[in-house]
Amino acid sequence: MRWTLPTTQVPEAWFNVVPQLPEPLQPPLHPATREPIGPQDLAPLFPMALIGQEVSAAPWIDIPGPVLDVLRLWRPTPLVRARRLEQALDTPARIYFKDESVSPAGSHKPNTAVPQAFYNHAEGVMRLATETGAGQWGSALAFACALFGLQCKVYMVRASYQQKPYRRVMMETWGGEVVPSPVDQPDHPGSLGTAISDAVRDAATRDDTHYALGSVLNHVLLHQTVIGLEAREQLQLAGEERPDLIVGCCGGGSNLGGLALPFVPDPKVELLAAEPSSCPTLTEGRFDYDFGDTAGMTPLLAMYSLGHDFIPPSIHAGGLRYHGDAPIISLLVRSGRMRAVAHPQTAVFEAAVQFARTQGTIPAPETAHAIRATIDAAVQAREAGRERVILFGYSGHGLLDLQAYDDFLAGRLAGT
Amino acid sequence: MRWTLPTTQVPEAWFNVVPQLPEPLQPPLHPATREPIGPQDLAPLFPMALIGQEVSAAPWIDIPGPVLDVLRLWRPTPLVRARRLEQALDTPARIYFKDESVSPAGSHKPNTAVPQAFYNHAEGVMRLATETGAGQWGSALAFACALFGLQCKVYMVRASYQQKPYRRVMMETWGGEVVPSPVDQPDHPGSLGTAISDAVRDAATRDDTHYALGSVLNHVLLHQTVIGLEAREQLQLAGEERPDLIVGCCGGGSNLGGLALPFVPDPKVELLAAEPSSCPTLTEGRFDYDFGDTAGMTPLLAMYSLGHDFIPPSIHAGGLRYHGDAPIISLLVRSGRMRAVAHPQTAVFEAAVQFARTQGTIPAPETAHAIRATIDAAVQAREAGRERVILFGYSGHGLLDLQAYDDFLAGRLAGT
Repeated sequence: MRWTLPTTQVPEAWFNVVPQLPEPLQPPLHPATREPIGPQDLAPLFPMALIGQEVSAAPWIDIPGPVLDVLRLWRPTPLVRARRLEQALDTPARIYFKDESVSPAGSHKPNTAVPQAFYNHAEGVMRLATETGAGQWGSALAFACALFGLQCKVYMVRASYQQKPYRRVMMETWGGEVVPSPVDQPDHPGSLGTAISDAVRDAATRDDTHYALGSVLNHVLLHQTVIGLEAREQLQLAGEERPDLIVGCCGGGSNLGGLALPFVPDPKVELLAAEPSSCPTLTEGRFDYDFGDTAGMTPLLAMYSLGHDFIPPSIHAGGLRYHGDAPIISLLVRSGRMRAVAHPQTAVFEAAVQFARTQGTIPAPETAHAIRATIDAAVQAREAGRERVILFGYSGHGLLDLQAYDDFLAGRLAGT
Repeated sequence: MRWTLPTTQVPEAWFNVVPQLPEPLQPPLHPATREPIGPQDLAPLFPMALIGQEVSAAPWIDIPGPVLDVLRLWRPTPLVRARRLEQALDTPARIYFKDESVSPAGSHKPNTAVPQAFYNHAEGVMRLATETGAGQWGSALAFACALFGLQCKVYMVRASYQQKPYRRVMMETWGGEVVPSPVDQPDHPGSLGTAISDAVRDAATRDDTHYALGSVLNHVLLHQTVIGLEAREQLQLAGEERPDLIVGCCGGGSNLGGLALPFVPDPKVELLAAEPSSCPTLTEGRFDYDFGDTAGMTPLLAMYSLGHDFIPPSIHAGGLRYHGDAPIISLLVRSGRMRAVAHPQTAVFEAAVQFARTQGTIPAPETAHAIRATIDAAVQAREAGRERVILFGYSGHGLLDLQAYDDFLAGRLAGT
């Protein structure tokens, strides 16, 4: 069963969790002075509307009409009950997922790409620069820029640029310009760190250009709360008072935050982050101030981190290969409001294939981390003979990740 | 705006157009005797339930409950008003599309793969064999077989098998077995004709195995009528009495038939088939009895055909490279109830990119033929100053066809 809502019921305000967090967020620090940064420090990179949202303590922030018009191209997204998976697991748990894979770019990323493009356009910016690893974020921003008439320049990690041309083609179909990073070292395979440096340098040195980030920051998680707000309403249509457990995969934290943050004020709802064993930021990282990028050019953020020079192994869930985590997610974990679990990628792909053969759709490798954790919780519910309502985030489809499935089915996937 | 329906409103019966056609269908003929074939001729390949549907004159045929249960994983599909495209074209036409790309396999094909798997399973068949060219049909059948616990063997045209591995991986993820065709000539690039021969031979020589076909036959078009039945209801929700024009891309005819057949009895609804200039079956073919396959093993069908030995050029819309057309579609065109138009692929991809940059989603190359014809009709409406309601079939997404977009954007696409 699926629960849909009419397009008139896309939420008209974002939910700001900041005033309801268990303790105050620590401010970002200037990378050189280590003093708290102010709006003027961010003005070369971001429009004032987003800088204001980054530090806002308002409980709700209105979504502008032109943003709603675009979100309604695919929102509200469906809430689906995974009955066939439940039957295969013989579990008394009721499993629901919120399907963000239906967006034009195939993931939750456009939820923030669209308002970021809108606010930049509204403040007269003509061009956005960003980085992308596997390509999910870059394609979401290229899509959003196409709809607001902005130019979009994407610095793509060179190894991905060469090995995964389809994401590049998506971006170009929407009119984006894509170049391999690092731009000045043509033999370097690149990393998210080099690509961030290229994009920030581009934005800082051109008057017509701003920078856009697809995760980690407060305003990004804010924009993603449409996911959880819709899910809460749809669960009620499905006859559920509340989810007992919410599960999301976690790289930078925007997908998990989008689904979970509207439920933070309800202490009866358990929150779980699923991350890869090979990049175990929340389960094995240290909570401290650290840089957002490898080169140490960004402000210092108070977060769980494996160290800004940590280079995770090349796993297929490229969207989860980040050394840090969103400050909001980090605070929730440190305070005990959210738990975290890490899974090796072979166990993750076993869950993905079980999902595909019962529910039909092929999930993104990132999403499959949440499916692994959900299946484990549903099996525990069976063993405990306990009814539970589990809601997980189906953050994206795997149609541009089929090489990973080929490697798994052929036994070529590294176990970690 | 999108119009959705609850999953309880998936149609519970298929619409059979046969009793309402302008003239009777001519029967298929035996390839050797040229006499009309009977059920016993088809029994080695198809279950009796499907053979019965192939010749039924009942106006409606009930959809079995287990089929509905699976269809409800993604149905009803959305009806979307393409307002941004309308604005870009500055047209008084109102453009709607029925989005079949949301199925697990990414196209309309599962609408018939699911009942075909169900009826075979119900009659004790353990295994299905089929052919696939670009891979859309093979992946739909592999998906359907996974959900009913059937084995699935797909003979894939060797050139596609080697050049487009992602569709093969999709089929394998659902548990299907995929081999390149022709199986006995490892240096031959293959064709749909060789693959049909391999699949039919497999089914004819194994007691546990039947054959499944993804287009052309009456029962296939019957299963696809859920598309048009839902669209009719959704158009009324949108406040439209009827569409003035229905447009669908046409290869074998199942996508077009699924959308258009429920509207055949209403003479105020104009019907238009969009096909590729390089395989212009309806616009330049001859109406006569011809074989369904290249080797002349299948029954003879009364249809428009370019000749069963016609080899179309290698265009990117692989799903439209078929020498014939469904007998039902052929009869509608010959009687004047439906028109047909042919477009060269560069003009088709221009329309696809315009759609992606206005509406956001990237269509399949097949679907883009319908978009080309729709844009042309909307521009004519503007020039005539005439309000029109245009409904087209968004038969599938282009996420596994991005190489074609790369070729188009780089100017490497052949013009025909």
